[in-house]
Amino acid sequence: MTEVASETVATAGEPADEPFAVEPAAGERVDVASLAEQLLGGWAETRRVARELAGRPELHKLEGLTYREHRQRVFGQLKYLVDHKAVHRAFPRELGGNEDHGGNIAGFEELVTADPSLQIKAGVQWGLFGAAVLHLGTETHHEKWLPGIMSLEVPGCFAMTEIGHGSDVASIATTATYDPETEEFVIHTPFKAAWKEFIGNAANDGLAAVVFAQLVTKNVNHGVHAFYVPLRDPDTKDFLPGVGGQDDGVKGGLNGIDNGRLHFDRVRVPRANLLNRYGAVAPDGTYSSPISSPGRRFFTMLGTLVQGRVSLDGAATAASKLALTAAIRYAAERRQFNASSDTAEEVLLDYQRHQRRLLPRLASAYAMSFAHEQLLKKFDDVFSGIADSDEDRQELETLAAALKPLATWNALDILQECREACGGAGFIMENRFASLRADLDIYVTFEGDNNVLLQLVAKRLLNDYAKEFRSLGVGALAKFALGQAAGVAYKTGLGAVAQFVRDSGRAERAALALRDEDTQRLLLADRVQTMVAQVAQALHGANRLPQAEAAARFNQHQNELIEAARAHAELLQWEAFTEALDEVGDPGTKKILTWLRDLFGLSLIEKHLAWYLMNGRLSMQRGRTVGGYINRLLARLRPHALDLVDAFGYGPEHVRAPIAAGGEAERQAEAAEHYAALRASGQAPRLEKHAKSATADA
Amino acid sequence: MTEVASETVATAGEPADEPFAVEPAAGERVDVASLAEQLLGGWAETRRVARELAGRPELHKLEGLTYREHRQRVFGQLKYLVDHKAVHRAFPRELGGNEDHGGNIAGFEELVTADPSLQIKAGVQWGLFGAAVLHLGTETHHEKWLPGIMSLEVPGCFAMTEIGHGSDVASIATTATYDPETEEFVIHTPFKAAWKEFIGNAANDGLAAVVFAQLVTKNVNHGVHAFYVPLRDPDTKDFLPGVGGQDDGVKGGLNGIDNGRLHFDRVRVPRANLLNRYGAVAPDGTYSSPISSPGRRFFTMLGTLVQGRVSLDGAATAASKLALTAAIRYAAERRQFNASSDTAEEVLLDYQRHQRRLLPRLASAYAMSFAHEQLLKKFDDVFSGIADSDEDRQELETLAAALKPLATWNALDILQECREACGGAGFIMENRFASLRADLDIYVTFEGDNNVLLQLVAKRLLNDYAKEFRSLGVGALAKFALGQAAGVAYKTGLGAVAQFVRDSGRAERAALALRDEDTQRLLLADRVQTMVAQVAQALHGANRLPQAEAAARFNQHQNELIEAARAHAELLQWEAFTEALDEVGDPGTKKILTWLRDLFGLSLIEKHLAWYLMNGRLSMQRGRTVGGYINRLLARLRPHALDLVDAFGYGPEHVRAPIAAGGEAERQAEAAEHYAALRASGQAPRLEKHAKSATADA
Repeated sequence: MTEVASETVATAGEPADEPFAVEPAAGERVDVASLAEQLLGGWAETRRVARELAGRPELHKLEGLTYREHRQRVFGQLKYLVDHKAVHRAFPRELGGNEDHGGNIAGFEELVTADPSLQIKAGVQWGLFGAAVLHLGTETHHEKWLPGIMSLEVPGCFAMTEIGHGSDVASIATTATYDPETEEFVIHTPFKAAWKEFIGNAANDGLAAVVFAQLVTKNVNHGVHAFYVPLRDPDTKDFLPGVGGQDDGVKGGLNGIDNGRLHFDRVRVPRANLLNRYGAVAPDGTYSSPISSPGRRFFTMLGTLVQGRVSLDGAATAASKLALTAAIRYAAERRQFNASSDTAEEVLLDYQRHQRRLLPRLASAYAMSFAHEQLLKKFDDVFSGIADSDEDRQELETLAAALKPLATWNALDILQECREACGGAGFIMENRFASLRADLDIYVTFEGDNNVLLQLVAKRLLNDYAKEFRSLGVGALAKFALGQAAGVAYKTGLGAVAQFVRDSGRAERAALALRDEDTQRLLLADRVQTMVAQVAQALHGANRLPQAEAAARFNQHQNELIEAARAHAELLQWEAFTEALDEVGDPGTKKILTWLRDLFGLSLIEKHLAWYLMNGRLSMQRGRTVGGYINRLLARLRPHALDLVDAFGYGPEHVRAPIAAGGEAERQAEAAEHYAALRASGQAPRLEKHAKSATADA
Repeated sequence: MTEVASETVATAGEPADEPFAVEPAAGERVDVASLAEQLLGGWAETRRVARELAGRPELHKLEGLTYREHRQRVFGQLKYLVDHKAVHRAFPRELGGNEDHGGNIAGFEELVTADPSLQIKAGVQWGLFGAAVLHLGTETHHEKWLPGIMSLEVPGCFAMTEIGHGSDVASIATTATYDPETEEFVIHTPFKAAWKEFIGNAANDGLAAVVFAQLVTKNVNHGVHAFYVPLRDPDTKDFLPGVGGQDDGVKGGLNGIDNGRLHFDRVRVPRANLLNRYGAVAPDGTYSSPISSPGRRFFTMLGTLVQGRVSLDGAATAASKLALTAAIRYAAERRQFNASSDTAEEVLLDYQRHQRRLLPRLASAYAMSFAHEQLLKKFDDVFSGIADSDEDRQELETLAAALKPLATWNALDILQECREACGGAGFIMENRFASLRADLDIYVTFEGDNNVLLQLVAKRLLNDYAKEFRSLGVGALAKFALGQAAGVAYKTGLGAVAQFVRDSGRAERAALALRDEDTQRLLLADRVQTMVAQVAQALHGANRLPQAEAAARFNQHQNELIEAARAHAELLQWEAFTEALDEVGDPGTKKILTWLRDLFGLSLIEKHLAWYLMNGRLSMQRGRTVGGYINRLLARLRPHALDLVDAFGYGPEHVRAPIAAGGEAERQAEAAEHYAALRASGQAPRLEKHAKSATADA
């Protein structure tokens, strides 16, 4: 790949005047069909089936409904999914499922193209409520409750989040106190901050809920556990005694879901309603658990819920692909200037600024897509039992915590830039950018706030670092932080800190060839490790300070820490893109995709250029060439942009944006025909300035 | 100011551990009342009146309406504005107006706090439709049409944009051909690309329109002119013969406005319906104009419409202030961690990352506010005739073209970060972030697409540059571009290229004191002039190339050119902030506001740090201190954040976000009370880990 890149991107220096797009050489074209197949990934057939379903009008979002109408429509669509066997892939075989965890997520993600509300409402029912019963409950729970959950006979809630504690699940205040007299748990909300909040299915549809509460028995708090709690009378839909709630009303998006609040006034449920895979209470109130550490038990329970993050990563990627497909098709037709003249004119996508706006984002979508495929594979390995050690689970969680923030933030950025790149037409709901953007907005703060997730990643990186350098003193750390030590990079598969085997680890060597794959890797990896090392050094000894001072010290580096985690996630995306290049057989496709990967890598380096310069990783002179490289890559990629979005494989039934359907080109043809006929008629009015000069001549 | 800044920000180097917020010294506090008065600016009384009106429930946006209901509500609100004399400030005295142009815009901007749809719908009726009749028409037009426009008896459209030509008004294809036989103009849409598009009031309410069309008489096209064209029968609301249209339907926001398309099939209007201030046609078809150059005439006509951009700049600023008020108040109450413990805990705003997210945006909002005040003053000077030379008009237009893009993009960024900083609560519509963001989305591409506007600014900068250096050869330009020449900065008041009088113009001196006001100015100004010089040099001689090559050359630098314009606009904002400091009397307020200005300036320098390093303006060592400076400013500003948003002067009737109303603190108090009572009772359950160690001890 390195050679491919080197031979095709001109060397640095003052660029000669280049055309708006570089004409492809022979063989330089994308094999759309094979690339599309690669992008479909490990669950290609499932995705195909899911896309066929998502393309049906019955499942499409209708714009302009009230939120009540939208909720009703989506609830009906959930039944449609059940009828078409679209949502049972993860459940046990004996209950009619497939025990196919990766396929389940793959299929689920594709629903976002129909309506994100449908995706998330299905996620609430089967991915959260159902999955909690599946993963936190045991066989009797499965037999008793999963059939109703799978058939949607019992719509339900996943009642974890509380008003007072967004991301801090360990501190929820709802209690479940065991009463040995009646062998019941008493579910109770002690104050308003403990109301369950933003709970999908809570405002209307939920007949039951998995409620997370502090399990108290024999006056000991064993921490957060999950309980199956009936909420409403199935006939009247009224709340059962002691249960109360409130509708969250209209939201910024996802209005097909009835989010709401729930509270409980000493609601009693049988002892058997504790989902007891990780913690059980005997009739006499004796607590037992297969995991003795309360902390580890808590994280094990929460860990079963990682699929939410995995699927948001994938859905954000799918929505990004849709938007780029529409915006790039439009940009390849739309002309900025006077269509009435004779001269050949550029379309929007020929303009450098427009390329700068769309093509690096196209590269990001590819990186997101390949990285997601790796995450999904890891998820399936863990949940299918192929590789489910503690270490595997931790890696999966950290990988999800790294990729989900980037993918969801990128999706908002991509959707917005696509909307702006289509001007006023991008704002009309039928073209879908604004609609998808509104719905995906919440993806950046739910299932783990992005900033909080990146802090989790950062802590993991610090731990890895501490392990790696346990034997080294502060002096060695300082030297390392200053980039004098041989390179040690965090490679894909988080926590696997691998030694870079290189003849010279000095990052300054990077200056030699930015287009070189190893150089890009070295620059990206070196930045992660150096940032982590710098924070580690700054925090060195903080654990021996008084608590308040230690907290202040940590707080002073919080921003850098989060930026280090982001850098790590960017490296993971870059690695995934690079690994995917190895799987490309067709040479033309490989060449073009390598340019796209280079665009992704160089865009990251450009974004963080100040860091590379300040830390001596790039010379000033070399730094000044980054922008020029990117511009030349844009001109080379321009002729392949349409192929690259076609390879996403979404049909008109998924894209559904009128501006991507060729109308602009038709209108231009009509206008050009009109002017040609007018000129041919000899009746075309002269322009005033020409008329004037004619008068002057006369 | 320089001294104020120097004495209060610690010098560079390794920071000592600092607390989460720096306790203010004696006298370090914001005089909220006087700062609020300063922020109200030159039309304080008008703003007060407008805010009182905008605070009334009758004018507030209701969430969850269908777009049809929302349109009806907003149309009713327009009548309410007429009844309360809120919209006539700009119109002639003899017709009941005040001829107060600046006040008109100031009052109009404040409507955004009630409902952006109301603001923009009022803008369509009085700021576009009415203003076109006022500024492009003559006295008989005023007498005939303005009363109906002012009273809303005749709701109308501003029919300029066409499907085929978004930002390229000169190329619109609608024709108005004069027929001397009947002394009528024939308004005609020759093909679909010439349909008028995104026209407010077109889908439902518009009874008439000012239609922009190519004026053709005696078979000569005199370019774009405006015509008053009746659209609908006032009684039946049906389109008049020859007029047709289409509803744009649901949009990403602003759904209180009935945008739509319009087309004309040889619709005849009397000769007198030409708004003839800048171009007239005699009964026999002879064309005449006070402006002989067709190009200059066109730009003069369009120039009368600059108020749209001015008001969007102000409205975007107002919406940003609202959002920051809500998000910062919430952040000052909300706690991230366990409220059940005894220890004092930090609120969100104490965290560095949260400060990094909100406080630089607070600084931006101040910069936007002060810059807008200067723009509004300039606008009023031109439109009131105080200073309305061609040069003044050009400066006004360029200033508006520079500030509107930054303010509207900043507003979206601020609204989004505020929404994310409030987590799920930020997504609930009643807290307004998502609602305002959806409505303001289109502000970045209407009344001039932001990227197109910045290109206009860039061309102006290149022209100024060429004038300034007309006598210099390429060699001198090269030297200049490399930053070796003495500093020449573009100061506030665009086009006034002023000589920086400095003992040393070398930008390297900047390294000495980033907190110094002159240093910040030098760094920001030097970047603008160098970027412009570099592009100018790269384009040197392009005008002698064949057209296609010249276009390609230009295209290769399009991105840099737009970035240079953005840098210029950032400098204008910084200058406006700095000039505003001079007007602050209270020393404590001045000190704190100077920190805020420093935060604004240093954030810009941090954003463009790669440029400063690559171009040798900052040393690597100095570059590394920028982030630390910013972090220390954040800690110093933290204790004043609430005062700084209070000074925006918006009451609960404007903010209307439940999360900003103190509920969070109440809930925390209730929770704390609960836990205190539980502990006092001796009945509090022990945590499992404590219970275990107790067992082990026993």
